[in-house]
Amino acid sequence: MRADARRNRARVLEAAEAVFAAEGTSASTEEIARQAGVGIGTVFRHFPTKQALLEAILADRLARLTEEARSLSASPDPGAALLALFTRMVEQSAAKKTYVDALANAGLDAMSAMSQIGQQARQALGVLLARAQQAGAIRDGIGVTELIALVVGASRAAEHSGWDQDVQARILQVIFDGLRP
Amino acid sequence: MRADARRNRARVLEAAEAVFAAEGTSASTEEIARQAGVGIGTVFRHFPTKQALLEAILADRLARLTEEARSLSASPDPGAALLALFTRMVEQSAAKKTYVDALANAGLDAMSAMSQIGQQARQALGVLLARAQQAGAIRDGIGVTELIALVVGASRAAEHSGWDQDVQARILQVIFDGLRP
Repeated sequence: MRADARRNRARVLEAAEAVFAAEGTSASTEEIARQAGVGIGTVFRHFPTKQALLEAILADRLARLTEEARSLSASPDPGAALLALFTRMVEQSAAKKTYVDALANAGLDAMSAMSQIGQQARQALGVLLARAQQAGAIRDGIGVTELIALVVGASRAAEHSGWDQDVQARILQVIFDGLRP
Repeated sequence: MRADARRNRARVLEAAEAVFAAEGTSASTEEIARQAGVGIGTVFRHFPTKQALLEAILADRLARLTEEARSLSASPDPGAALLALFTRMVEQSAAKKTYVDALANAGLDAMSAMSQIGQQARQALGVLLARAQQAGAIRDGIGVTELIALVVGASRAAEHSGWDQDVQARILQVIFDGLRP
């Protein structure tokens, strides 16, 4: 892909995330093109369907998570870095759920569609977790499976409490204290 | 309601739970009547629609939870009793989710339909939690809102890990350790 095409694609993705967050995933492609400052033909060239756009946003988020986990693995305090990333994943879960639900409503299993990029994110989180355990910040005996399940569970708990910031902070405190050695 | 009508109603509920668990909520009313040992007319007299039956099962489960929480409040070790109840709620959440989803698919919000009985369960759990906190077994600063959100979150975490018993045990251990003072 040429550099300007790559830039346009990234701008469409960024605009689509903002428009979907504001108006829901039924927002029009016209609005996305307008906010991205490109023609509607450019949107359709990169993403022929709404599904393709939703999948690309999810893949993009997972790729960013992978990068973030990889760079945090080199942090001098991998335990604190892991818990900060855990918090961000919970905070971003509402938006992520919107995309996953929209794809599910279209009959698509978002997670299996991005199994390869999901595996990379899982692996990067596993490395960060291992570093945090080696640093003595996180208890032994839990693996990346438990970690991801706890992120998913904490996200659901936060959703259940209506995204109340105080409740969410107390829930995360319980889980983080439980993750200590 | 006369005593034999009450007994029949209870038998239909019990049979319906067993049949739905085995065959899903699309199971036939005939099968439920057969397993309950009553005529199909008896099922329809107590539960005119499938929705009424699903709501009654959920209400029944919530009522049992309320009773259990109330009786556990008198336990000599309310902390251990609370965590054991937490574990049972997570274990039963898969079945509960089936009913809630079936009602949601019928356009009904199960939880608002049973708000009164839900409030009683919430209150009973709150009393048990307060006893456990007074006994020094559970940290201060969390309330029944956080407790229920954590049960919901742990249930989702267990579901996400495919109800793997080992993963579920490790997830609960993290949360229970985090709930300690």
